[in-house]
Amino acid sequence: MNALHIRTDRLDADWRALSEFHAPDAPGWTRRPFTPEYAAGRAWLAERMAEAGLEVRLDAAGNLIGRRAGQRNDLPPLVVGSHTDTVMGGGRFDGIIGVLGAIEAVRSLRDARANLAHPLEVIDFLAEEPTDFGISTVGSRAMAGALPDGALALRDPSGRTLAEAIAGAGGQPANIAAAVRRRGSVGLYLELHIEQGPVLERERVQVGIVTAITGIRRLRIEIEGRPDHAGTTPMGTRRDALAAAAEMILALETLCGDGLGVGTVGRIHVSPNAANVVPGAVELWAEVRSVDPQVLEQRERVLRGRTREIAARRDVRVRDQTVSQEEPVPLPERVQAGLEEVAQKLGLSARRLPSYAGHDANHLATIAPAGMLFVPSQHGRSHCPEEWTDMAEVGAGVSVLAAALVRFDREQPSSAG
Amino acid sequence: MNALHIRTDRLDADWRALSEFHAPDAPGWTRRPFTPEYAAGRAWLAERMAEAGLEVRLDAAGNLIGRRAGQRNDLPPLVVGSHTDTVMGGGRFDGIIGVLGAIEAVRSLRDARANLAHPLEVIDFLAEEPTDFGISTVGSRAMAGALPDGALALRDPSGRTLAEAIAGAGGQPANIAAAVRRRGSVGLYLELHIEQGPVLERERVQVGIVTAITGIRRLRIEIEGRPDHAGTTPMGTRRDALAAAAEMILALETLCGDGLGVGTVGRIHVSPNAANVVPGAVELWAEVRSVDPQVLEQRERVLRGRTREIAARRDVRVRDQTVSQEEPVPLPERVQAGLEEVAQKLGLSARRLPSYAGHDANHLATIAPAGMLFVPSQHGRSHCPEEWTDMAEVGAGVSVLAAALVRFDREQPSSAG
Repeated sequence: MNALHIRTDRLDADWRALSEFHAPDAPGWTRRPFTPEYAAGRAWLAERMAEAGLEVRLDAAGNLIGRRAGQRNDLPPLVVGSHTDTVMGGGRFDGIIGVLGAIEAVRSLRDARANLAHPLEVIDFLAEEPTDFGISTVGSRAMAGALPDGALALRDPSGRTLAEAIAGAGGQPANIAAAVRRRGSVGLYLELHIEQGPVLERERVQVGIVTAITGIRRLRIEIEGRPDHAGTTPMGTRRDALAAAAEMILALETLCGDGLGVGTVGRIHVSPNAANVVPGAVELWAEVRSVDPQVLEQRERVLRGRTREIAARRDVRVRDQTVSQEEPVPLPERVQAGLEEVAQKLGLSARRLPSYAGHDANHLATIAPAGMLFVPSQHGRSHCPEEWTDMAEVGAGVSVLAAALVRFDREQPSSAG
Repeated sequence: MNALHIRTDRLDADWRALSEFHAPDAPGWTRRPFTPEYAAGRAWLAERMAEAGLEVRLDAAGNLIGRRAGQRNDLPPLVVGSHTDTVMGGGRFDGIIGVLGAIEAVRSLRDARANLAHPLEVIDFLAEEPTDFGISTVGSRAMAGALPDGALALRDPSGRTLAEAIAGAGGQPANIAAAVRRRGSVGLYLELHIEQGPVLERERVQVGIVTAITGIRRLRIEIEGRPDHAGTTPMGTRRDALAAAAEMILALETLCGDGLGVGTVGRIHVSPNAANVVPGAVELWAEVRSVDPQVLEQRERVLRGRTREIAARRDVRVRDQTVSQEEPVPLPERVQAGLEEVAQKLGLSARRLPSYAGHDANHLATIAPAGMLFVPSQHGRSHCPEEWTDMAEVGAGVSVLAAALVRFDREQPSSAG
């Protein structure tokens, strides 16, 4: 084979073209799953896959898959994927460059006449971001056989079921088990993604190699105080649910100040939420993230203890419920080492770092050896219209991705790890 | 004249009857102004006024007025009033007992053949509680000539103007100046109200005599941080608007912990308010109340300073705006002393106390010597369905009201004060 050559001009043209598919009336570059703009973007994407020599299909879960045969089709495929949906008000890089980069990697292999022993698949996973059905990473969960019971019956605010939405996206929800890949049936999973954080930019490093994907514990905390007249109720007799919540928000911030993971209260509902009424009830959504299961455990325990102390002192009632519990996903050392070596050979600076965002890789890692590559995010911004990575930086990541496919085609991490 | 005799059976029957007029689909005993149930309640009330021997009319501002002639109709009237509208989900006492109590006081004067020199008016002021037009105490403001410029053009969420609503309630908005009473044209204003706080119940005192009505400063505080990914953004680089808000909420609580007035953050809006995004922007509504103008001033100044410190330390931007500024209304010592003497003669326990809620009396006090009487609120609860005062306790307040009319008819506080 000839040397692999990633053409950023081609990548840039694809990126510009796909960016055009966004909701006209939503902020930023919004492309929510199950919308006309999402369908149109994927139709365009299927054409690019076909042009790159891939055989295109939708699986029963609605994942868009482009496949290239290997020299030995009895071998399990190498899979490269990510997603093309965005959050509301999202940007043009998160997920998107992983799919477009995979197609460019395939084109570079074709241009270099690099024939791989393994079949190769590029996958645009259905609906990675949190959906209106209250579930995220729909397609990759389905592929890993990890859709929760009853997920297909979940409804969005319009009353549509997830099953109906998947059917609308070209999947076959009644036959969704057909999309499941059993453990060992995928030779390797790789995903290129933007970092969505500030580390690579700050350290001027070109490529991040993900050591583990964060675990997440998310609690819904209900605080019940007493709604009182904001004038006539003396300070000492109040049971102010919002003041209690304020203490809990700061307690979580303090708890996570040690640099081991992060913690956030991102969402709060206050009742009755009137300027002249002492808040009677508050719901908080608090989450902690860490790649260390013990840290997660400790955070959750200490947070629960602190909320109880605060509630008791303020004579309010508190209840909490774990609404999401994702365990940390360590990625195989062998894959990390291989990616690092490839980057080094290409003359690119690299460092290992954890991912504090969840990804489709969380689920693929349960059925295959998995690796993730990060490229820098300008100012660490993500999930916003300002999300940015220079195309040359994306290209560096794609070059590692393409070269890694060649490397791992020869030496599968599963057999050697 | 014979001794005045307040008949709580009659008062109780009226109270039960008026309570029946409430919104069928709203919580509690909701009777919002400008609704069919409000109109029906007032029609019923007009009949009770007429039965009590009052001449009934609606003024141009939509205030329902029952008038009894005096022996000297050149004298300015003694006015007794309150309101019959409620907050959403409100109770059956706030405002209501002031109007029904005034009618019972008139009946007791009639039964005792007590002829007063002054004319007497009972007024059900239009729309005392905060309305959907963003303004409260509509009728009493109008009577005091204190409706803000442009108030009649305010619109509720349905698009109706306040002028249209007043016309619908039987007022004549085009001629609203006709409702204005000039300073000196009202001889005395008295209002009986529930305390809406815990003091009288706690101290087992039957009647509260209001020394001053609270001033209110309400600020809208906008905090602008940066919405970041809740996983990938290290704690140290965040500009979390909600964590900043939490500090401000607790700062206000601490500031008001000295017992001089009260302070509340009752309302908060968070953006984007998603569990996985660091809050980028928060709006807080913070209010402070005190009967002392200097305390109000100090509270507002210190709160502003603290929010600026917190914002600077956390690298968020803060802006604030005074959205409401009501000065404290001291009530004349002469009226307080007269009410106290009347209570004493009736063998009722009384104490002086400030009112931390606003009332129609705020506005009437600008045109007449004004006095307010409180009766106990069970558990200090108000603005909720559980609001409660035993009818015997209401009756005690009404007996002071009736006797005070006789007393002040002889010795007007304005002339003697």
